Amino acid sequence: MKKIRIAIAGYGNLGRGVELAVRQNEDLELVGVFTRRDPSQVKLLTEGVEVWSVNDAASKADKADVLIICGGSATDLPTQTPEFAKYFNVIDSFDTHARIPEHFANVDKAARDADHIAFISLGWDPGLFSLNRLYAESILPNGKSYTFWGKGVSQGHSDAIRRVKGVKRGIQYTCPIEAAMDAVRSGSQPELSTREKHTRLCYVVAEEGADKAAIEAEIKGMKNYFDQYDTTVNFITEEEFERDHTKMPHGGFVMRSGLTGDGEKTHQMIEYSLKLESNPEFTASVLCCYARAMARLYAEGQRGCRTAFDVAPAYLSPLSGEELRAQML
Amino acid sequence: MKKIRIAIAGYGNLGRGVELAVRQNEDLELVGVFTRRDPSQVKLLTEGVEVWSVNDAASKADKADVLIICGGSATDLPTQTPEFAKYFNVIDSFDTHARIPEHFANVDKAARDADHIAFISLGWDPGLFSLNRLYAESILPNGKSYTFWGKGVSQGHSDAIRRVKGVKRGIQYTCPIEAAMDAVRSGSQPELSTREKHTRLCYVVAEEGADKAAIEAEIKGMKNYFDQYDTTVNFITEEEFERDHTKMPHGGFVMRSGLTGDGEKTHQMIEYSLKLESNPEFTASVLCCYARAMARLYAEGQRGCRTAFDVAPAYLSPLSGEELRAQML
Repeated sequence: MKKIRIAIAGYGNLGRGVELAVRQNEDLELVGVFTRRDPSQVKLLTEGVEVWSVNDAASKADKADVLIICGGSATDLPTQTPEFAKYFNVIDSFDTHARIPEHFANVDKAARDADHIAFISLGWDPGLFSLNRLYAESILPNGKSYTFWGKGVSQGHSDAIRRVKGVKRGIQYTCPIEAAMDAVRSGSQPELSTREKHTRLCYVVAEEGADKAAIEAEIKGMKNYFDQYDTTVNFITEEEFERDHTKMPHGGFVMRSGLTGDGEKTHQMIEYSLKLESNPEFTASVLCCYARAMARLYAEGQRGCRTAFDVAPAYLSPLSGEELRAQML
Repeated sequence: MKKIRIAIAGYGNLGRGVELAVRQNEDLELVGVFTRRDPSQVKLLTEGVEVWSVNDAASKADKADVLIICGGSATDLPTQTPEFAKYFNVIDSFDTHARIPEHFANVDKAARDADHIAFISLGWDPGLFSLNRLYAESILPNGKSYTFWGKGVSQGHSDAIRRVKGVKRGIQYTCPIEAAMDAVRSGSQPELSTREKHTRLCYVVAEEGADKAAIEAEIKGMKNYFDQYDTTVNFITEEEFERDHTKMPHGGFVMRSGLTGDGEKTHQMIEYSLKLESNPEFTASVLCCYARAMARLYAEGQRGCRTAFDVAPAYLSPLSGEELRAQML
């Protein structure tokens, strides 16, 4: 069997996660990693894999079947994904929901112009959570959907904490409110405000002599980030921070509460949840099985941009249709 | 907009569920119901819909875009689905897992010979649960999958109870064992025996003067049905039975516990669950959104047999790709 050749662009937490996830899939092999750093300074976990400069993308175009782009959504992916799509079939995890239509249009044009296929916005949200919203809403048209996140680390909110004066280290956990989830599960289809759905839990290591009360007040009042939530700020030592708060757990819940039957009085409840010890490693695992799907769809002649919505589930599995029907249906 | 014309074959609980689910989808309309009974004796819930004899299938071939076959898996569907596929694009909910490959082959041949498309084994298990097994196993290749059913009514086990001498009415609920589910959720990937996963809870109305101890012993010892489970038999009055046990709730859980990362030590957990007040109404809702997908795939020229694995999620929704990306991704 000829393996699907995977390349990675960007070697941070997500890139390293993809490197490790590729190892778990026998039909995939990692061939190279693009970096913006000096390639000679990047040490991979895998022997024999090349490190390339992002400036050399054109000359590496025939080296990989699929390039998984592991940059950030704010500034990297809007330019990187269309640019790399000139040379590769590309996958990204673009997660700025409001800008997806624009990103899709840019990537679609770049991919079509270069006769490539591209998948955007893969991972778990957007990605698996989006799929579950779509399946559940298609099945239960009369209903209400809810997404809860956590308990997990929000990078954006953690970054915001760290910008507060006097904060040496900081991390923020988004926590779903159990009572709200139970209200949804009851079938009552509650209207839930932002404050009623999640709390925000912060752990802060303060600088020597910093004004803790001022730090706490500034965090809690931060517009958009914290002011609409019940926020708890805990001050801890650097040792405690190192010991308990250097992982990147996350997860969440997608629920749909619907009504069916005569008079639409029968309650039906669909719930999907993830509990992840490592957000980037899990996202990487999602990207890898979509790389398999991409190689197959490309071989079938598909071109242009796609999302998780457009990929039939069977393409994700290494098993044949016959095996899937016998073992998994 | 031209509506997708739906016909139903078989007007039992599932057929009535489809009739009601069609009403919840503006782009679908019910045009006719096939019955094995005398059509003049079948009273539908919907005005203006025709009732046809199953013997007249050939003459109704141009009346519907999709026929949803609502027969039983044991004896009806193995013959009905290939037969109806001569005249219609067909969907069934064939759920005898072990016989799916054979049924697929038969339906595929019949559909291809008649230039039709067919979907088999749709609903929630097989169906949505199968999809979740496939997605989760593709994402987390190093892991273990679990399916728990219930709490819900098993028709097969209820039928078995009712065959016991002295039983006037009987119903059986399959109950997942919470401790087993929690063990799975812990990430320990336990090996679970049949007895450790589910219990069986029976409610029986005994005939006047029947030997209750004998009934209980016979139920608990029934090979394959009950002998491998911890079974509880409760005797109740006919009034209690009427009041509390005439609905068909069901549901269940699909879980995958996987490991990722360096050394494969990071726990990742995916869980999907359904809590259904009515099993047939929910199954009907699943069938209806696949009817929409079927009409689209047929228009694109697809022919032959498919399962849920082969249908890209976007086909299920009434929304356009653009709307889906903007609203649901």
